[in-house]
Amino acid sequence: MKIMVGGTFSPLHDGHKKLISRSFELAGKNGHVIVGLSTDAFAGGKNHPILSYEVRKKSLDAFIRDSGYSATWNVIPLEDRYGATLDTDFDALVVSEETFPVSLEINRLRKERGRKKVDIHQITCVLADDGRWISSTRIHRGEIDDHGRMIK
Amino acid sequence: MKIMVGGTFSPLHDGHKKLISRSFELAGKNGHVIVGLSTDAFAGGKNHPILSYEVRKKSLDAFIRDSGYSATWNVIPLEDRYGATLDTDFDALVVSEETFPVSLEINRLRKERGRKKVDIHQITCVLADDGRWISSTRIHRGEIDDHGRMIK
Repeated sequence: MKIMVGGTFSPLHDGHKKLISRSFELAGKNGHVIVGLSTDAFAGGKNHPILSYEVRKKSLDAFIRDSGYSATWNVIPLEDRYGATLDTDFDALVVSEETFPVSLEINRLRKERGRKKVDIHQITCVLADDGRWISSTRIHRGEIDDHGRMIK
Repeated sequence: MKIMVGGTFSPLHDGHKKLISRSFELAGKNGHVIVGLSTDAFAGGKNHPILSYEVRKKSLDAFIRDSGYSATWNVIPLEDRYGATLDTDFDALVVSEETFPVSLEINRLRKERGRKKVDIHQITCVLADDGRWISSTRIHRGEIDDHGRMIK
């Protein structure tokens, strides 16, 4: 299957890793994964400092390479919340609980454009040791590390 | 992964087959799929006649067996819209666009019961030749066959 997934991944934490890994599992051996990576300009609206596109791309590439999936993949710049999802032929979109509403918008907009709707795979967020979501904001605040362990 | 999916499957049409096949693909080689099959009593509320549980189970079993997936599986009776999903440990629920709202309720109820939420995989409905969804209701009305071909 051809899968699309996206994010800012600053830094790449265990929740992001679940999102990426699931995308490759869904794609299957002969599939393809397109990862949309927020540009610095698009990510600039976040409420915490963002690592540069190049740094984020490097750790994304390294994680995917080291995971050893056999599906092919490419990383493309994501300049807005929809990226290339409205005009690309693909099978399924992988999203988190947080970004699930965007997937519904994407299917609505695809339909308006006469494109077929895509399947949606929503992963539940990975929990930190305190039972709350792992998020980049919490990591930047210094509450948890990128595996969700509490920082004392 | 351990996957749950459910339905009435009367008759088992191409939309249902996509739902079942996707469940096994997601489960993976060493996974397990639990298929909840509506009991005759629960399915009795539908707006069209329903094949008996035994007949429906037979064609479900035959379809899964013939597909040759290596994940293990079992079919259990589904007596209401939630079935065993609230009290079973599993990873992901596979639903159609129609039943997606139920998956959100299931996660809400699981959380209330102190259980972890599950991932949700929503497939888009399979379209009949006329561009509208394949559905059991339309098949029972004699509009389309179970592959979505128009009946003249």
